[in-house]
Amino acid sequence: MKAVTLQGPGKVEVREVPDPAILKPTDAILRVTAAGICGSDLHYYSGRIDAGTGWVIGHEYTGIVEEVGSQVTQFKPGDRVVGVISPVCGTCYYCRNQQSAQCSRKEPFGFGGDPGCQADYLRVAYADVTLEKIPDSLSFEQAIFVGDIFSTGFHAAHEGGIKVGDVVAAIGAGPVGLFAQVSAQLFGPAVVLAIDSVPERLALAEKMGAIPVNMAQEDALARVQKHTEGRGADVVLEAVGLPGSINDAFRYVRPGGVISSVGVYAETEFAFPMNDAFGRSLTFKIGVCPARNYMKPLLSLIEQGRVDPTLVITHQLPLAEAARAYDIFASHKDGCIKVLLKP
Amino acid sequence: MKAVTLQGPGKVEVREVPDPAILKPTDAILRVTAAGICGSDLHYYSGRIDAGTGWVIGHEYTGIVEEVGSQVTQFKPGDRVVGVISPVCGTCYYCRNQQSAQCSRKEPFGFGGDPGCQADYLRVAYADVTLEKIPDSLSFEQAIFVGDIFSTGFHAAHEGGIKVGDVVAAIGAGPVGLFAQVSAQLFGPAVVLAIDSVPERLALAEKMGAIPVNMAQEDALARVQKHTEGRGADVVLEAVGLPGSINDAFRYVRPGGVISSVGVYAETEFAFPMNDAFGRSLTFKIGVCPARNYMKPLLSLIEQGRVDPTLVITHQLPLAEAARAYDIFASHKDGCIKVLLKP
Amino acid sequence: MKAVTLQGPGKVEVREVPDPAILKPTDAILRVTAAGICGSDLHYYSGRIDAGTGWVIGHEYTGIVEEVGSQVTQFKPGDRVVGVISPVCGTCYYCRNQQSAQCSRKEPFGFGGDPGCQADYLRVAYADVTLEKIPDSLSFEQAIFVGDIFSTGFHAAHEGGIKVGDVVAAIGAGPVGLFAQVSAQLFGPAVVLAIDSVPERLALAEKMGAIPVNMAQEDALARVQKHTEGRGADVVLEAVGLPGSINDAFRYVRPGGVISSVGVYAETEFAFPMNDAFGRSLTFKIGVCPARNYMKPLLSLIEQGRVDPTLVITHQLPLAEAARAYDIFASHKDGCIKVLLKP
Amino acid sequence: MKAVTLQGPGKVEVREVPDPAILKPTDAILRVTAAGICGSDLHYYSGRIDAGTGWVIGHEYTGIVEEVGSQVTQFKPGDRVVGVISPVCGTCYYCRNQQSAQCSRKEPFGFGGDPGCQADYLRVAYADVTLEKIPDSLSFEQAIFVGDIFSTGFHAAHEGGIKVGDVVAAIGAGPVGLFAQVSAQLFGPAVVLAIDSVPERLALAEKMGAIPVNMAQEDALARVQKHTEGRGADVVLEAVGLPGSINDAFRYVRPGGVISSVGVYAETEFAFPMNDAFGRSLTFKIGVCPARNYMKPLLSLIEQGRVDPTLVITHQLPLAEAARAYDIFASHKDGCIKVLLKP
Repeated sequence: MKAVTLQGPGKVEVREVPDPAILKPTDAILRVTAAGICGSDLHYYSGRIDAGTGWVIGHEYTGIVEEVGSQVTQFKPGDRVVGVISPVCGTCYYCRNQQSAQCSRKEPFGFGGDPGCQADYLRVAYADVTLEKIPDSLSFEQAIFVGDIFSTGFHAAHEGGIKVGDVVAAIGAGPVGLFAQVSAQLFGPAVVLAIDSVPERLALAEKMGAIPVNMAQEDALARVQKHTEGRGADVVLEAVGLPGSINDAFRYVRPGGVISSVGVYAETEFAFPMNDAFGRSLTFKIGVCPARNYMKPLLSLIEQGRVDPTLVITHQLPLAEAARAYDIFASHKDGCIKVLLKP
Repeated sequence: MKAVTLQGPGKVEVREVPDPAILKPTDAILRVTAAGICGSDLHYYSGRIDAGTGWVIGHEYTGIVEEVGSQVTQFKPGDRVVGVISPVCGTCYYCRNQQSAQCSRKEPFGFGGDPGCQADYLRVAYADVTLEKIPDSLSFEQAIFVGDIFSTGFHAAHEGGIKVGDVVAAIGAGPVGLFAQVSAQLFGPAVVLAIDSVPERLALAEKMGAIPVNMAQEDALARVQKHTEGRGADVVLEAVGLPGSINDAFRYVRPGGVISSVGVYAETEFAFPMNDAFGRSLTFKIGVCPARNYMKPLLSLIEQGRVDPTLVITHQLPLAEAARAYDIFASHKDGCIKVLLKP
Repeated sequence: MKAVTLQGPGKVEVREVPDPAILKPTDAILRVTAAGICGSDLHYYSGRIDAGTGWVIGHEYTGIVEEVGSQVTQFKPGDRVVGVISPVCGTCYYCRNQQSAQCSRKEPFGFGGDPGCQADYLRVAYADVTLEKIPDSLSFEQAIFVGDIFSTGFHAAHEGGIKVGDVVAAIGAGPVGLFAQVSAQLFGPAVVLAIDSVPERLALAEKMGAIPVNMAQEDALARVQKHTEGRGADVVLEAVGLPGSINDAFRYVRPGGVISSVGVYAETEFAFPMNDAFGRSLTFKIGVCPARNYMKPLLSLIEQGRVDPTLVITHQLPLAEAARAYDIFASHKDGCIKVLLKP
Repeated sequence: MKAVTLQGPGKVEVREVPDPAILKPTDAILRVTAAGICGSDLHYYSGRIDAGTGWVIGHEYTGIVEEVGSQVTQFKPGDRVVGVISPVCGTCYYCRNQQSAQCSRKEPFGFGGDPGCQADYLRVAYADVTLEKIPDSLSFEQAIFVGDIFSTGFHAAHEGGIKVGDVVAAIGAGPVGLFAQVSAQLFGPAVVLAIDSVPERLALAEKMGAIPVNMAQEDALARVQKHTEGRGADVVLEAVGLPGSINDAFRYVRPGGVISSVGVYAETEFAFPMNDAFGRSLTFKIGVCPARNYMKPLLSLIEQGRVDPTLVITHQLPLAEAARAYDIFASHKDGCIKVLLKP
């Protein structure tokens, strides 16, 4: 089959690789119908993380079930599906406790180990637990993000404990940040401020219901305070993952408030303002999301037209044009926010 | 001053009555700027409940502070305010536990005892706790309902424990029911079904974001099941208060679901389907709302344009025309949903 | 194999019946090591419910895995296990939402359909989901109740939403009631009142940490009020299931409080004091428990010595003496509270 | 009156100072019956924090109401009371949201500004909100800690979100740590491990229900893992406030777990293991406690004999012997854990 392979910093190539096969009775093989390029893929593409070359990249996907192992009971060939980025077992301690992001038998792919989803076919472990059927009325493009970035954004909002009437500051309006803002609005806040410095992203944030705040042009802290009688945001969602954005989170949050961070944080340490946090009684939550918990309710919202996740898709290209797609995404060309590859 | 007095079944008259005065150091006197006619007022107007005649009716109000007692610290003359229907003390066991609806020193007015708010002036006990300032950007009409029917509708939704992606069935699209539906949408449900048989109410429910279901024309249960793969609603909000509507709630709710009822239930008993509820593990919640908890967040939502409560106001009349106003409201004339009196 | 069969009102007989066999690849066969006689079994034994004769009774069990189907991955022959009374699938809507009591593929046994557990061997469907390993340090007697009556009692307490410092009134000190009281104490209440009229039960309730209240000898409501400055209990746990005990629950509960009922309610209807409940803002919860959620944490508590569930076992008899065991249990002979049969 | 005044590093003296007086109508004057010496007092005593000399120290107190201002309605002379360490207003945004630790009108005393409680008399602002009546059956010694260290320990446990069956690691068995451990047990954990290196403290921790772990003699991490099948603690309570103890908290906590810290953290920054926390999805909570919320339920528990807070009191001395008392407490003489001064 054809697949996108990483060939070094700034270089991906579509090459012929072996088709995946059922390895365990709980596996399924999907014919991939859409594969996203994710910010995490850029860590490898940029060379920031070195995981060798030659492997198939990608972890955001939808597909049609092609074949199932003997113990798969919930799916059959022909089913249209979306799935969690890293297959989870469903039976370990963490899966039983609704914390599948910590699954102790997780089988990730597309991160330098098992072959990823930017390819014609994909092997998915623990298919019964990892996959979710796409409702008939939804397209693959509408469904794809619930397996990763929509669930991640939703997780930020969910963990933030937003209450009706709250003021939420969302830092970062990239794909995950946009879904964090959209998700925040599901909890009845009075205001969601989308804080970023890229005009295209802010325009999209506004279109998706947030109040845009261009931190390159105005004092974002002052805007937060203006909406909160000077107190600061009840909940801050952080979707960038850099020391500067985390510092901003502490500046924006009110005493007694919550910072919920889902930006991929690559540095080992962060200079946490502990004494300040102690005096102001803060809660700080950070981590990867249990997409398993969120896929079904989010698909229901999309089906009912409550959220339109396709607004973030600025580019769709054939799998064969992966090299161009990565270039566009990495360099934010043409106002690019999110790219899908279509095998 | 002028005030609306009950003079017998179907009869209210505007008469001259003594001005209210500060009786305790925690009181405030308001100049009333708007007073709603509530479904509860009709219990007396219709004669269904007999509380004598000659008293001043009404418990939904906004006003401007005219005078405050010596221990009132949060308000001063000139403040624009809205308040809880039955003043609450703020210091008893229930008030301290955020259950002010059960306040053990509650001082209701407009129910046959102390004089109500359909008048030029109103005495409010425990002013610091009972009142809330109206933001400058909001009109009295925008603010008035947070003291009673919006808070009551919100309470129904809040107690229902709605989760993102849920399907909510809301029984009754009168004023409280409409606010229950609007409030339900603050918790991120996939679907809110507004079930009623009055076309005008259903049209308004749709305008306010729900899916209208005319139970006189179609099988409401079938609609609920269609939206839930046959299971039934995750949460049912009941805002009618009649045995038939409560029975419907049990029919619509799914196993493991919640019924949250705020309809004023006047009968002593209800034939609760206990064995069925046991087998299906149901939660049933009923009661009056702690509006004290909800006024401030709801005002924030209104201020931000997230909810427009004035949509339910179909009629506004001068206080002097109270008799006509009651007639319109009681007989649902001219598509009447909610009437405000303006002193 | 030998098994206890129902032979008519007041009559059970141990007879030879066919051994159970694996019917589906997710089944397991257990060699039964202990089987409880439950209050629910008495509905059939007494003739109150007629489900025919000749079938094998019983649904509380521990055992040693004898054989597993081809899709069972979590258990192997020799494993010591306890299990949920009605096997649950783990994959349906309800199971995924932690409400396995409502599992839509539930496969109960011992209720007049599939053969129950008061026998040498037992077939358990969905073994991976239904069973839980017994820690090495625990005996079968220590573990058996987490599959049914301990989980049911815990469910009552859990759903009651007990907060630290609360006063809890627990109605009924039979086996389920005792576990409700013990479970209530896990949530940090100030007081748990055990209300019953059988001295042996009350003595055991006291031994297990509650304050006994003999309602045959004193005014239980007065005791509740004495502990709550006259308000009533914050949470009432009801473990009897009769109209009188439910009525008592409404008398004991305070305004704004919660009634959590797990008594098996056999009547169709109950005259719910709706108007009173409305005025006092009550929550009423009733239903069967998702034991699947509770088995593991409860086993941990038992393992650490925090709870000793064997205190309720007053009698243990060989399976062969089932007739005598039923007689003792049904007629409360010898201070009988709970009987185990040992195959 | 006599009062303990700070006179420089390592030096306190009992001197004659002016009696306090009612300054605002919401004040009360107490005759102090017991005053604790707290770890926070040592920051000044040791010279680690310099707030000048000559001022009256102390913030843990019980007393008898001597005089009340004209707007105090809940208390009268002769009432036996305990109170929050820093008086809170009850009406600001934070107080209304049950986050009184962040009260925007807080009036602390005994920290270098207003005169503290280690004195014959004490002025308490916002008396109606700040004070709580001591039940008749309780002594001052039994009640005093609910205003500060018991509430602080309880806050740690409460914020940790402990669930029934959890394993809790509590770091630090000083006065606050001991109350954190005792409080953790109110939430039904299977195990509470008390981790410290001082034998006397560990002995007391064991007496109060925890499993002592002497980190100077054994590998505390290994103990935590042994109790959790290698996963780590579900919840870690941190009551020391040093970088080393916070680092330990991250080592002990399991993926998906919670760290709840109430140790007074004096350094500005902490090197937070952000990348690790991201991968393991951790929650970190830190801050001062809203004792206002906890005093009443904790007093109920003490009244019922569920907790005996006097176990931590190792020394009681007359106010006149404050110098000796500080020396004993600061140097941990005679197995000193907690000292009360009696004016």
